[in-house]
Amino acid sequence: MRATVYVRLKPEVLDPQGDAVRRALGRLGFEGVRGVRVGKLIEIALDDAAAEGVKARLAEMADELLANPVIEDFEIVT
Amino acid sequence: MRATVYVRLKPEVLDPQGDAVRRALGRLGFEGVRGVRVGKLIEIALDDAAAEGVKARLAEMADELLANPVIEDFEIVT
Repeated sequence: MRATVYVRLKPEVLDPQGDAVRRALGRLGFEGVRGVRVGKLIEIALDDAAAEGVKARLAEMADELLANPVIEDFEIVT
Repeated sequence: MRATVYVRLKPEVLDPQGDAVRRALGRLGFEGVRGVRVGKLIEIALDDAAAEGVKARLAEMADELLANPVIEDFEIVT
């Protein structure tokens, strides 16, 4: 089975990378871009035998390794 | 309006970052993880006036700046 973990900076955390992308889009002539936020998507292939309780295990993985819970939120889609 | 661009390595491109995450999950005791691929998600806030033809413009943005089309695929969700 497959699962995806989306990791995004918390709304109150500044995103210098996203700001750099926003400015670069402006320089390239793309108008009307108000803001850009950059996050991660992590695609995980799991043994089917591991499917039981997988959401809870993925949340543990995200909390311990995939995201930094101080500054990032995560969302799990299975 | 808001749009999200998902950027993933092409399937044939090796992902050393994803492999490092897979090994680290194993060391942390998470079993059954077959593979991990790491990509980016880019959330873009656009002026509502910019909504017309936005998918085509986002595809241009992705092609020119957000993704490296040699090694990455992108998907646009509005």
